[in-house]
Amino acid sequence: MAEILDGRKISKEIRGELKEKVEKLEALGITPTLVGILVGEDPGSASYIRLKEKGCEQVGICPVMLRLPQDTTEEKVLGEIQKLNEDPDMSGIFIQLPLPDHINETNVLNAVRPEKDVDGFHPLNVGRSWLGQEAFLPATPIGIYEMLTRSGYGVKGKEVVIVNVDSLVGKPLASILVKEGANVTFCQPSSPQIEDYTKRADILVVSVNSPKFITADMIKDGAVVIDFGFNYIDGKSLGDVDFDAVKEKAGAITPVPGGVGPMTVTMLLANTVKACEMAHG
Amino acid sequence: MAEILDGRKISKEIRGELKEKVEKLEALGITPTLVGILVGEDPGSASYIRLKEKGCEQVGICPVMLRLPQDTTEEKVLGEIQKLNEDPDMSGIFIQLPLPDHINETNVLNAVRPEKDVDGFHPLNVGRSWLGQEAFLPATPIGIYEMLTRSGYGVKGKEVVIVNVDSLVGKPLASILVKEGANVTFCQPSSPQIEDYTKRADILVVSVNSPKFITADMIKDGAVVIDFGFNYIDGKSLGDVDFDAVKEKAGAITPVPGGVGPMTVTMLLANTVKACEMAHG
Repeated sequence: MAEILDGRKISKEIRGELKEKVEKLEALGITPTLVGILVGEDPGSASYIRLKEKGCEQVGICPVMLRLPQDTTEEKVLGEIQKLNEDPDMSGIFIQLPLPDHINETNVLNAVRPEKDVDGFHPLNVGRSWLGQEAFLPATPIGIYEMLTRSGYGVKGKEVVIVNVDSLVGKPLASILVKEGANVTFCQPSSPQIEDYTKRADILVVSVNSPKFITADMIKDGAVVIDFGFNYIDGKSLGDVDFDAVKEKAGAITPVPGGVGPMTVTMLLANTVKACEMAHG
Repeated sequence: MAEILDGRKISKEIRGELKEKVEKLEALGITPTLVGILVGEDPGSASYIRLKEKGCEQVGICPVMLRLPQDTTEEKVLGEIQKLNEDPDMSGIFIQLPLPDHINETNVLNAVRPEKDVDGFHPLNVGRSWLGQEAFLPATPIGIYEMLTRSGYGVKGKEVVIVNVDSLVGKPLASILVKEGANVTFCQPSSPQIEDYTKRADILVVSVNSPKFITADMIKDGAVVIDFGFNYIDGKSLGDVDFDAVKEKAGAITPVPGGVGPMTVTMLLANTVKACEMAHG
């Protein structure tokens, strides 16, 4: 029976540490501030924004949510970002995705000053991370890395298989783990004999958004299984792993909900505090 | 008996194509120009610079080699780069490494305008490449990719193992191959049971600078073996692969010398022509 990696508990622990850091900054008269830009009325985005606001309040970060109407022009959004880039009171900036179709996402993401890019989406942060330089990394991969190391699962020398090759999870996670000495495989989710890859993993990370994609026969005995899948079926949240069966064989496993999910907002808060600390030298 | 992947032949083919592209630019009154900055008297650097000059002349690129004395200050080097960045006649700029100890390599490499960074070392190019955006990539990995595809070895769906995790070869090569649909493993050269990794590879890429590091029992029957090792023993150049034994088992193999080596200068020339074409719309 696997150890259950409790994202809510680890997240709470990290938020406690962040709160202490924010109090130290406050004592110097500095308030870390996180600005979110939301364009339009996407209902999913609205609820994410609320989670981020709530997280900010919990640790003492000042949340500033800029809500722009659906028909805002790209030029106007870029102008707002420019002002926020220049404003020394704004520690971190994130753009709540998706943006309306008439706005070019790459243009907008690249306009955020890399030193305030707490989502780690700017190519300069992506490049710095692969070059082993100081950089902001996206919340999900750093959240996964924190869960592993805080639970005592070191990655050095381990065989890690990542079933995901996207820019938000798989690639930035690989950049962290390779630097930390792991042997890391990018496995294309469309691979025909995917179990040949998943069975080798000491640490298996999956994010394909397909329920029960990973079954017990696809993992190695005692593997650490990190599930960042998100599926909403019959009113229930499910990951990509057949949790009940896999937990009998794995050494450790993240549940869905309550695994990686709660870590992502927390790591955005952590990046914001880091941006604030760096800006104040 | 493996097919020998002849880097000199493929390189000659690519240089022929580049010559045609340069002639088209010349007809428009445009001469692609490659600037190299060499600081000090490193003998290895001097001979690399000569190879690059010769390559430029062969395809019609104008080579401009800026030789600065050993005691040149970092500020002076940065000033020269600034001027070259602004000069519309300079298509590409590279810094010949190593630099003298008193000069910070990262500062200098990051000063080259990304659009002229034909070595692909700038973090913005590294990030763009991982994000799947248009970018300059270092010569060795694009040379390896060209050798594979021009020899008919597609990478989509293939298992590729890269025994190298550095920023010049392993990481940028992975960025290309993952984008092209391969399953790619970063294998730390220090892994104790490295044959567990190398034996799985449909395509094995090695760069560890240790002669006969890869022996015949460490590869799969019919594998494509790319050797970017460089060792100089008793006046002879050797790669990292036990060539004579491995060639009996592999499906294809690069020799050393005459394999990946000749491709690197050629791909620097290719990047220069690309930079020139992009600058002129």
